[in-house]
Amino acid sequence: MQRQRRLMSATVLAAAFALCATAAAAADLLPSWREGKTKQAIVQFVNEVTAGGGPHYVRPTERIAVFDNDGTLWAEQPMYVQLAFVLDRVKALAPRHPEWKEKAPFRSVMAGDMAGVAAGGEKGLLELVAATHAGMTSEEFTAVVTDWLATARHPRFNRPYTELTYRPMLELLAYLRANGFKTYIVSGGGVEFMRPFAEKVYGIPPEQVIGSSIKTRYELRDGKPAIVRLPEIGFVDDKAGKPVGIQTAIGRRPVMAFGNSDGDFEMLEWTTSGPGLRFGLIVHHDDAVREWAYDRESHVGRLARGLDEAQQRGWVVASMQRDWKRVFAFEK
Amino acid sequence: MQRQRRLMSATVLAAAFALCATAAAAADLLPSWREGKTKQAIVQFVNEVTAGGGPHYVRPTERIAVFDNDGTLWAEQPMYVQLAFVLDRVKALAPRHPEWKEKAPFRSVMAGDMAGVAAGGEKGLLELVAATHAGMTSEEFTAVVTDWLATARHPRFNRPYTELTYRPMLELLAYLRANGFKTYIVSGGGVEFMRPFAEKVYGIPPEQVIGSSIKTRYELRDGKPAIVRLPEIGFVDDKAGKPVGIQTAIGRRPVMAFGNSDGDFEMLEWTTSGPGLRFGLIVHHDDAVREWAYDRESHVGRLARGLDEAQQRGWVVASMQRDWKRVFAFEK
Repeated sequence: MQRQRRLMSATVLAAAFALCATAAAAADLLPSWREGKTKQAIVQFVNEVTAGGGPHYVRPTERIAVFDNDGTLWAEQPMYVQLAFVLDRVKALAPRHPEWKEKAPFRSVMAGDMAGVAAGGEKGLLELVAATHAGMTSEEFTAVVTDWLATARHPRFNRPYTELTYRPMLELLAYLRANGFKTYIVSGGGVEFMRPFAEKVYGIPPEQVIGSSIKTRYELRDGKPAIVRLPEIGFVDDKAGKPVGIQTAIGRRPVMAFGNSDGDFEMLEWTTSGPGLRFGLIVHHDDAVREWAYDRESHVGRLARGLDEAQQRGWVVASMQRDWKRVFAFEK
Repeated sequence: MQRQRRLMSATVLAAAFALCATAAAAADLLPSWREGKTKQAIVQFVNEVTAGGGPHYVRPTERIAVFDNDGTLWAEQPMYVQLAFVLDRVKALAPRHPEWKEKAPFRSVMAGDMAGVAAGGEKGLLELVAATHAGMTSEEFTAVVTDWLATARHPRFNRPYTELTYRPMLELLAYLRANGFKTYIVSGGGVEFMRPFAEKVYGIPPEQVIGSSIKTRYELRDGKPAIVRLPEIGFVDDKAGKPVGIQTAIGRRPVMAFGNSDGDFEMLEWTTSGPGLRFGLIVHHDDAVREWAYDRESHVGRLARGLDEAQQRGWVVASMQRDWKRVFAFEK
């Protein structure tokens, strides 16, 4: 009897899933994508790998899709959101650090001298990261990030940074999940900077966020267990680091990869060189009116090799200007 | 219309899930656990955290359960399975390395001199790991592990190691998943040693396996992208490393933790010191007839502090002898 009951519920469940799949196929879950080659390529790929019995069928457990974050899921201009966070944190912490007034790179930050910050190079950046990202527990850092995101505003749009997410990409994430994909973020940004908002904003739970990290240590603080963040780089999830980050966290090769800069090149290369049908897409920032137009010459999100080799590698280049009806949700 | 259709399917899905949950509660999904305090504690905890509207309700996305592997999900006597793999690999590779005949620790391995191997300490062990686990791609290593598991036999039971998994724990994994939990392995063993069998044997996909690792590098080998395994320790997922490994990979604190040795102490401590209802369980190896009896004095899977502090910390100690009707699936 009990067994029968379990079987019955499994049948109902299967029916529900089938219904869902039909609904997902029937409805247009990508309304912000213009009809055309790019949208067609996405939908056709998903149809092929989810067609049971088809030659390109991929089991649900292997349906892994990876997304870069900065410039792919949300805006990265005029500077990476995490850099804006660092600058704000330095200013907020400055009263407790009078010595920063005389000390690079903090002095440059407080003077709003971005050229001076840039001149500090990697060493200067590491000092900023150490001062703003380390020396606290993971839970404390999560609270700091959450508070900042609730109040900080993007300089051009005067909206919370989490509204600078791309509407077509949010639809794409949901569309892939409706088709049995597990969606991952694979970003050069800090993993504990992204996790506090990724679930709410993208529907991506913390365990599906892969990023750069500083080292941490487990210890008792006042008798209470804590993960403490240390002022030392642990892992850089960028360029050739992305396939390593993917292998470490997921342990299998993705089926689809989405990026926007040459920092994503190796991730797309690794994904699309696997056996069977694979999909790679580059978001091309060519819309100076609704967003920004930049590629080969940009310091942020430089894209050159990806543009040069996309065609021969079979990667789709999505034009923000032509392929996206809407960029941000707040647009009329 | 389309929207209505999607709503309808969501309702059917919710109904199916509700039916499933009822079935899971009604049926005994833990038949290899004897009725008693231990089984009751597990079932009661799961009922409380899954009771919608109840004071201890935990959302499905936060239902994270972590399991040690060696000694918790499968046998670790007379030696860790991965150590048996290392010894077999050294013997298999020896014809290509004539110099090993004169060289510690390889000489000791080939002579079956375990005391000699142990005398080599950490340095010797690292040399063995480098010789057997590195210098190949991740895909090649996966193939080596898979082949070995298919042919190697446990010395006492003369069965594949994957049959040395504990039946009650396999039931527990499935029971928790039926109740909306995500089940993770968090082991001191190598992550790429476990992933090749974890999905088939435990139903745990590679992305839910956390373990120790050596460093890797992404590179082109003969023009083909590959993840290459390097002879350098990357992360040791043991003792205080376990909470760090959990935070790095999952990004939130588990609700339930299962271990068997003092190597799991910090994982249980971290899990059960979180807010709300938490659950910690230690598998106590006290059955010399069906398995092995060992704890405080054992070199493998030493358990002392866990036994001393379990009661005051509210951790359940499961007795293999009294709580498990069956240890292995192959038992009559």
